[in-house]
Amino acid sequence: MESGEDRLIARFFRPLATHPGALSLTDDAAFLCPPAGHDLVLKTDAIIGGVHFFPDDPPDAVARKALRVNFSDLASKGARPLGFLLTLAMPVDTGEDWLEKFASGLRQDAEQFHCPLFGGDTDRTPGPTTIAIFMLGSVPQGTMVKRAGAKAGDRIAVTGTIGDAALGLKLRREPGLAAKWNLGDAQRDYLLDRYLLPRPRLEIADVLRDHASAAMDVSDGLAGDLAKLCRVSGVGAEIEFGKVPLSPAARAAHASDAGLAEAILAGGDDYEILCAVPQERFSVFRREAETAGIAVRDIGAVVAGREQPRFLDGKGSAITLSRTSFSHF
Amino acid sequence: MESGEDRLIARFFRPLATHPGALSLTDDAAFLCPPAGHDLVLKTDAIIGGVHFFPDDPPDAVARKALRVNFSDLASKGARPLGFLLTLAMPVDTGEDWLEKFASGLRQDAEQFHCPLFGGDTDRTPGPTTIAIFMLGSVPQGTMVKRAGAKAGDRIAVTGTIGDAALGLKLRREPGLAAKWNLGDAQRDYLLDRYLLPRPRLEIADVLRDHASAAMDVSDGLAGDLAKLCRVSGVGAEIEFGKVPLSPAARAAHASDAGLAEAILAGGDDYEILCAVPQERFSVFRREAETAGIAVRDIGAVVAGREQPRFLDGKGSAITLSRTSFSHF
Repeated sequence: MESGEDRLIARFFRPLATHPGALSLTDDAAFLCPPAGHDLVLKTDAIIGGVHFFPDDPPDAVARKALRVNFSDLASKGARPLGFLLTLAMPVDTGEDWLEKFASGLRQDAEQFHCPLFGGDTDRTPGPTTIAIFMLGSVPQGTMVKRAGAKAGDRIAVTGTIGDAALGLKLRREPGLAAKWNLGDAQRDYLLDRYLLPRPRLEIADVLRDHASAAMDVSDGLAGDLAKLCRVSGVGAEIEFGKVPLSPAARAAHASDAGLAEAILAGGDDYEILCAVPQERFSVFRREAETAGIAVRDIGAVVAGREQPRFLDGKGSAITLSRTSFSHF
Repeated sequence: MESGEDRLIARFFRPLATHPGALSLTDDAAFLCPPAGHDLVLKTDAIIGGVHFFPDDPPDAVARKALRVNFSDLASKGARPLGFLLTLAMPVDTGEDWLEKFASGLRQDAEQFHCPLFGGDTDRTPGPTTIAIFMLGSVPQGTMVKRAGAKAGDRIAVTGTIGDAALGLKLRREPGLAAKWNLGDAQRDYLLDRYLLPRPRLEIADVLRDHASAAMDVSDGLAGDLAKLCRVSGVGAEIEFGKVPLSPAARAAHASDAGLAEAILAGGDDYEILCAVPQERFSVFRREAETAGIAVRDIGAVVAGREQPRFLDGKGSAITLSRTSFSHF
């Protein structure tokens, strides 16, 4: 006599547990023989309905976001995924239909990123859907890229484009903004999608290990995350806002409303990589990143001193941000 | 300018991050050089306010329960703790007072069980307090004790006493039962405490690896968990209810109300170890377990066939259980 939980696990999650150490999810725990000569890289991040995603977001996108926010951290540390565990707390009215789509999204990304499920825990909750992912990655021993390590003179780079997800979130909350920002449907949909589904930059992991003096992913906002990287590295930074890479859609929105600079710099959910690279390595770094399929942009320089990073406008004046990043507290 | 979240982590959680790979919780991820010649053992379990604990339970006990339900799984797999990660979702009205006590409980057990914090994620939630622990342990390579492996003829054993926590939960919900069950205050408090704070049997881990053919921890109820162990091992089992170890308090309650047999066998939250041990090894197993400080009791035998495990009363008749274990689904 199997319990409902056993049946649910067998139906929806067992297909993701492709590693023999996961024991088809029929045991209390899983085992994993760690790759020789490597360090494990450990990360956990949770997403909560109504906080990190909308309760009516497509369940497969919710699952993929839950994984991808963690992949993004691995990427920034120069690590490759090894596997993950999942705790899923579901409201009592969660149907099998939701769960089937959720599991399908999870499976899609587990396959795409070669990251099998090693175990999990499912519960009912009187609260919102709460998904915690525990992600295991690996790097050759002693090579994890850290936040600490940026040095005065290093160039500061970001991958992809910044601000899209923060603008996408504004559009999700207030659809009328698309017209106000003079966005076409394709531009609006692009920004909405950038909020819905992060693109973890795992392709750049090896290049970061080879060249970056410090790195992290941009999840809480470029300005705040850069401040964290600088604080732990004991340095400052000067960024030229005009060099921060914007998508055509974000550029159009910003052209309509210059006040969006703050959302772009401090809004968060970018899941791009922010890193410091010694000046003499920068052109090699950029070339190798591009060979790996990731565009990187030089946005400024690490400077001596422990002052807050400064964002400069086209005239060299500091841009004042009323807040630098998202914080739950 | 540190965010509120950064300050909260520095104040409450950094003291637990004693391993150098945790980088004092100032990075996106942690690293860990896995012990040579060992497999990792991976486990996650979450507890939710109003589901797995009472919102007014002491915060330090909540923290310790969150860790201990995971330690219990490690123990049953023959593993030792290496470290843990935490995701903590707190209701908006959670005060620093609660958090301070929670962190203090977490720290107490992290120290007692030599299991440092490697990372975490804190969020606000519109729902109840939700605590997910990701536990890393290790075993000498290839030696994790599995659920599958019990063979006809093996003896079935449990550690400690069974049913205390299920009775403690009933008492917590309905204090008047203490009088109905003729319990003294000390007996009542004993059962309440057994529900509040699991005792993970980590001392028996090495002995299980040396002797058990299969093991798991009893979390959802002895009857249902034994059924799981038997199903995955492809065997049946016969248990004598009279041999199931009961604490004096549970014995007193059961003497007052024989109907409590079902709560004792199927109630869950025991966090004792259930294992199968080849008959010829049993006396050595018991002696070594007792040397390690853990009492074990032979409660029955593994039998051939795939029938549901049977619980027999003093006359050899099967006890009928309306449900065999707790299930959320």
